[in-house]
Amino acid sequence: MAIRKIPGGVTAAKGFSASCCAAGIKYQGRKDMAMLCSSVPCTVAGTFTSNLVKAAPVIWDQEAVHSGSPAQAVVVNAGIANAATGKTGMDLCRATAEYTGQTLGIAPEAVLLGSTGVIGPQLPLEKLCTGISVMAGTLSDSLQAGTEASKAIMTTDTVHKEYAVSFELPPADGSVPVTVHLGGMSKGSGMIHPNMCTMLGYLTTDCAISPALLQKALSDVVPDTFNMISVDGDTSTNDTLLVLANGLAGNRPITAEDDSWLLFREALFSICRDLAVLMASDGEGATHLMEMRVCHADTKENARILARSVVSSSLVKAMVFGRDANCGRILCALGYAGPVFDPARLELFLTGEKDTLCFFRDGCVQDFDEEAAAAILAEKAVRFSCDLHMGDQEATAWGCDLTYDYVKINGDYRS
Amino acid sequence: MAIRKIPGGVTAAKGFSASCCAAGIKYQGRKDMAMLCSSVPCTVAGTFTSNLVKAAPVIWDQEAVHSGSPAQAVVVNAGIANAATGKTGMDLCRATAEYTGQTLGIAPEAVLLGSTGVIGPQLPLEKLCTGISVMAGTLSDSLQAGTEASKAIMTTDTVHKEYAVSFELPPADGSVPVTVHLGGMSKGSGMIHPNMCTMLGYLTTDCAISPALLQKALSDVVPDTFNMISVDGDTSTNDTLLVLANGLAGNRPITAEDDSWLLFREALFSICRDLAVLMASDGEGATHLMEMRVCHADTKENARILARSVVSSSLVKAMVFGRDANCGRILCALGYAGPVFDPARLELFLTGEKDTLCFFRDGCVQDFDEEAAAAILAEKAVRFSCDLHMGDQEATAWGCDLTYDYVKINGDYRS
Repeated sequence: MAIRKIPGGVTAAKGFSASCCAAGIKYQGRKDMAMLCSSVPCTVAGTFTSNLVKAAPVIWDQEAVHSGSPAQAVVVNAGIANAATGKTGMDLCRATAEYTGQTLGIAPEAVLLGSTGVIGPQLPLEKLCTGISVMAGTLSDSLQAGTEASKAIMTTDTVHKEYAVSFELPPADGSVPVTVHLGGMSKGSGMIHPNMCTMLGYLTTDCAISPALLQKALSDVVPDTFNMISVDGDTSTNDTLLVLANGLAGNRPITAEDDSWLLFREALFSICRDLAVLMASDGEGATHLMEMRVCHADTKENARILARSVVSSSLVKAMVFGRDANCGRILCALGYAGPVFDPARLELFLTGEKDTLCFFRDGCVQDFDEEAAAAILAEKAVRFSCDLHMGDQEATAWGCDLTYDYVKINGDYRS
Repeated sequence: MAIRKIPGGVTAAKGFSASCCAAGIKYQGRKDMAMLCSSVPCTVAGTFTSNLVKAAPVIWDQEAVHSGSPAQAVVVNAGIANAATGKTGMDLCRATAEYTGQTLGIAPEAVLLGSTGVIGPQLPLEKLCTGISVMAGTLSDSLQAGTEASKAIMTTDTVHKEYAVSFELPPADGSVPVTVHLGGMSKGSGMIHPNMCTMLGYLTTDCAISPALLQKALSDVVPDTFNMISVDGDTSTNDTLLVLANGLAGNRPITAEDDSWLLFREALFSICRDLAVLMASDGEGATHLMEMRVCHADTKENARILARSVVSSSLVKAMVFGRDANCGRILCALGYAGPVFDPARLELFLTGEKDTLCFFRDGCVQDFDEEAAAAILAEKAVRFSCDLHMGDQEATAWGCDLTYDYVKINGDYRS
């Protein structure tokens, strides 16, 4: 029942193809549109930004997912977010979906849309349509096509983000287990803060699963994966995470919360966590991934709130950049987070590849080896943890350091 | 009934004296301790950090204020916060107050304490006591002494912060109105975020006022002044705002919420707002003060939440630093703040010394003059506002831009 990491991303699962093109929407000299397509209609589930100001493609996708009708293609552009664009922006979504549907020979309602980039400007429909025609003609189910698509949707990202796994499930017919594939890509580097997934993410699987259980699995894993990362505390207007399941693996369809569903959910968790951590470590300007684990909390939600508070703190983020073990800042960020705990019982740790140091215990900052701490803080991934000694719940959050380059990227450039 | 700005700070009111000294607690070559003293016992009111991890002097002052007994002196040090110091830190507070009381000939319970600086280390009692002896011997009621005290409590502040006002109240005897004075000093530059005042602030007045009405006036003005500023989203462990009233002005004591109380509260609001705005504009690394006014909100609290969300947004702060009118980020920060509003009815403005530009209206980002916007964003104070068209409530929040120097200050230096 093991989950294995396999090469590829959105085209790792059977029946999914991808393509991309340079449509010249805002960026010049690079690819800026991507298309995903399944050879057969898919069950779809999604989670979306909690921001009250929702981009037009978010509203389009929400309606599509809530309608329960199948989806078959996704069209994404980078450069312009199609947010704060009013009725014109919604009309453009419809026109884009209609053109895509016509080009691929599917219903407009089976086309999902995603946009990322600057808020405000209207998207140029003609360029979109030209791009869609090109992409429809170059769809490929190669792993490379998935990788190229994951690059085309980048904005300030410095690395493309894709993962895929496989696992075995009972077959629809016969007795030999079938291999199910689940892969995905995501983008996101700034305007990243836990509240729905703060990015664009597209997952594909050939698993046969009912719409309700697909959505439940996704809703179960998001709070501990994409919602546990922060780059800058800003929850985007465009966050969208979609999972498309086309059923081509030939497994006995998952229609109950049985062992097969639990395994599928575990695989989904694994992809979502890996993509989320990759986004945190590729936060705008980041030089370090930061991890904060809260254990022995009274409730799961309190553990999450405390862990997120630490990775969201500007002072903790600047301290990680400066490699300065000014651990009082972590304590401070736990203290203002909201959940009640007893500072006198709290223990706070820094864990490196070789050592673990205790920063705080018995109500006092401890004497620790400053050189050892500086060595750990020089590692690429900086891992803090605390033990509240209250209950049996835990949570982990991921973020990155606050650097000159974050300020440069967001001060100098209309991203 | 006018409130007049007058020179000075904590020694502007009758009967208050101040002093400071270089005790060498952490900083070298500068003054790092301050003392305030009243010639007679004072009514006292205070508000304190909401952080669960409270510094020892915060706990000491809270108990003193809640006891209702009079206060007569305040001793403050910069460099070490006496936070996360456990029982040792509390014992040190008692020893410091006892030594001060003995030196000044007052009860230890009449001595209030304040500390600011790095979290974790213990304060050196001997150095504190040496400093207290020096300061007790050099107390002065000159305006200069108040100014020097406001400089001695600075940490990463670049300017000292003091204000004073006077106003007339009915006399205790006779018919000629008496002049009442109210002054204050504060410090704060980093670890500044609205939730109680996120700083140290000390206000003095010669007004005769009951403890309950002094506290009520303070509690009334803090939510719209000190709690409406943010530098970095981090609510400190040490935030303390105290007001001491010694009654020496000779006014008819304020014992009801009458016109005199309303005038006193207005004067208190004016001092608190001016000190708060000065702290925001002196935020660590700041090159701009940022103001966000939310009007026609449905409730006062929603107006506050929305205004604070904008001045706290890293992306808005970086945009102000970069002088880039990327107004979608403001809309985004309003959208994730929590309160419900209708984006289609929202209007968003940028107001400079000469012009006001509309950024957003009718659900769309507007075409605005980019050059005019860049010129306004080059002004020292950048003022945004929005109209929700919902009700009659409004609030204003203040913050600053996010700059390379913020990262430098907090990455390079154990502040």
